[in-house]
Amino acid sequence: MVKPRACSPDVDIDSDHLFQRHPAVFRIRVRYGHPRAHAFCFLPRHISGSGSIVAVGVGAAARSNLALSPSPIRAKVICATNHNWKTGGANTALSPSNIPDVVIGRLPIYMRALSRAADGGKQVTSSHEMGEHLGISPAQIRKDLSHFGEFGKQGTGYNIEHLSEQLRRILGVEQEWAVAVIGAGAIGKAIVRYGGFSGRGFRVAAVFDNDPGKIGRSINQLEVLSTERLGSTVRQREIRVAMLAVPAEAAQRVVEKLVEAGVEAILNYAPVSLIVPSPVYVRHIDPVIALQHMTYYLAQKPA
Amino acid sequence: MVKPRACSPDVDIDSDHLFQRHPAVFRIRVRYGHPRAHAFCFLPRHISGSGSIVAVGVGAAARSNLALSPSPIRAKVICATNHNWKTGGANTALSPSNIPDVVIGRLPIYMRALSRAADGGKQVTSSHEMGEHLGISPAQIRKDLSHFGEFGKQGTGYNIEHLSEQLRRILGVEQEWAVAVIGAGAIGKAIVRYGGFSGRGFRVAAVFDNDPGKIGRSINQLEVLSTERLGSTVRQREIRVAMLAVPAEAAQRVVEKLVEAGVEAILNYAPVSLIVPSPVYVRHIDPVIALQHMTYYLAQKPA
Repeated sequence: MVKPRACSPDVDIDSDHLFQRHPAVFRIRVRYGHPRAHAFCFLPRHISGSGSIVAVGVGAAARSNLALSPSPIRAKVICATNHNWKTGGANTALSPSNIPDVVIGRLPIYMRALSRAADGGKQVTSSHEMGEHLGISPAQIRKDLSHFGEFGKQGTGYNIEHLSEQLRRILGVEQEWAVAVIGAGAIGKAIVRYGGFSGRGFRVAAVFDNDPGKIGRSINQLEVLSTERLGSTVRQREIRVAMLAVPAEAAQRVVEKLVEAGVEAILNYAPVSLIVPSPVYVRHIDPVIALQHMTYYLAQKPA
Repeated sequence: MVKPRACSPDVDIDSDHLFQRHPAVFRIRVRYGHPRAHAFCFLPRHISGSGSIVAVGVGAAARSNLALSPSPIRAKVICATNHNWKTGGANTALSPSNIPDVVIGRLPIYMRALSRAADGGKQVTSSHEMGEHLGISPAQIRKDLSHFGEFGKQGTGYNIEHLSEQLRRILGVEQEWAVAVIGAGAIGKAIVRYGGFSGRGFRVAAVFDNDPGKIGRSINQLEVLSTERLGSTVRQREIRVAMLAVPAEAAQRVVEKLVEAGVEAILNYAPVSLIVPSPVYVRHIDPVIALQHMTYYLAQKPA
C-alpha cells in the first residue's frame, strides 16, 4: 500500500483534462517530479481553481469502492484536500489500518455465523466448525482473527458471546448507525421494510424521494421526505451511512448531494459505478452483475 | 487450481462425521493415499451409503460460492458423484475454464459500462476511458479482455457494439435466462418488479411462496405459486437460475428443493451461508455485510 504522502512542489493540476461523464467532478493529475510517476484523483468541480492537494494515496477507501472487483485496484487514487468540503475533513481516513481489506470483508460473515450459532443455543465454537459452515479454511479464519487479538484457546475454541462482542466493536456496530435510504421505489421500500438490520448495527432513520406522489407517504412508519430536505435531515439526524436505490441516471447526482451533506459510506443499488471523493466509501449491489458472473459458468456446459 | 482427478482406491468415506448444522447434508472425507492429503466434500444425505465419488477438485464453483470472500478458498472442495442426483450430472462443471474467477467477475462490470456508453451515443471507447469510469487500471482491463481474444486496436480503441456482443456471448447472456424468485415478501416483490433485468439476460419466469395469503396473487402480472409446485414448474419452464428471498431459517431447505429440481445457479438474499453440491453456483447479497464492511473504516476515525 502506498502511504499517504505530501506532494512534491511540482504537482501538476491538469484541470484541462476534465472528466467528461460527470460534469460535477473533475480529474487532477498529480506528478511526483517524474513524468511517469503520477496519479489521478477526482475532485468535485466546485473547488476547482483553488484545489491545493495535500495528500494522495492508494488506500483502503479506493479499494473498497469496487466491491465486485476484489483484486487490488492499482489505478484508483484517493486524495484529500485542505478544503474542508466534506465533514471529517482532510486525510483522516487514508490508510486507516494495515489490515487487508479482504480480511475486513470477512469479519461481518464471521459475525453472522456466530449470531446464528448463538441463536441455535451454542456458547462455544471453533475455527473448524465455522470453516465448515462457511466454506472457509479454519487456518484462514484463525489468521484473519489473529489480526485483532487472541480470541480462542487451543483445544477449547471461541466463546461465541465474547468473540461476537469483539467483532461488533471492531466493525463499529456496537453502536447503531442511522441510515438514509434514497429512493422510495420497489427496492427502497424493500430496504426500509427489511427486518435484517435490527440488532446488526443499522437503523433506517430517513427515506427520501423526489416524486411528489411518494413524498408524505409512510413506509414502516417513516415518512418519505423530499430530496430537497436531504442535506438538512442528514445533518440533523447525524446520518453517516446511506443506501442508494434511485435510477442509474440519477445516482451520481444524488451521491454528490449525499457527500456534501456529510455522508461517508454509501451502499449503491443503482446499476452504475459511482465516482466519489475520498474518504467516502462505496459498495455496490447489482443482482445482474452477480447473476452474469454465474451464467458464465452455466454457459460453459450443456443444458 | 487443483484439477479434477479420479480418487485413489483408498477413498475414505467419513460418514460418521456428519455435518451437524444441515441435516440434509453430510460430509465426506476423501483421502489421497496419505493421511494429511485429504479433502472434504458435502453431499446431500439422500445419496448416503451409495455415494461413490468420481471426481474431487477445488474449482471455480467452490470459489464462486462465497462472493464476499474474494480470496481463494482453500478448504472448500467441490465434488461430483456418479449418482445423477441433479440434472446436468457428473463433473461437467468442474474447472470449466482456466480463467481466474476474479476476471470473470469483472466482465459484467465492463459490459454494464459499455451499455451506458452506448446509451450515451458512443460507438468507440478505450481501456483508458473505461478505467477512468470504473476505477480499474486500463492495463488490468486490457489484460482481462485478452483472455478472450483481440477486441481493440492500438490507438483506435474498442468498438462498443462488437465488444458488448462478445461479452454477452462469453457470459452466456446473448440468450435470456428464465429465473425463479422464491419468496414473495418485500424483497421478492422488489426483485420481481425490478426493471434492471430486461436486456441484460434475465427474465423472472416464476415466483413462489408458501404463505396461503400470497399464493394466487399477482406481482408484475406473474402469479405467486405455492412452493409445492416448485419442482414441476422449474422443470416445465426450463429454469436454471433462482433468486432466493426467504427467511434465513428456511433458506437451506429451499436450496435443496431448488437443486433437486435442477437449478444450477442461486443468488441468495437470505442472510445466511448455504451449502450446495457442485456444480451449483451460489452468490450472496446481504446488505448488512456490505454496510458492516464500510463501518469498520468509519469507526476508525472521529465522527
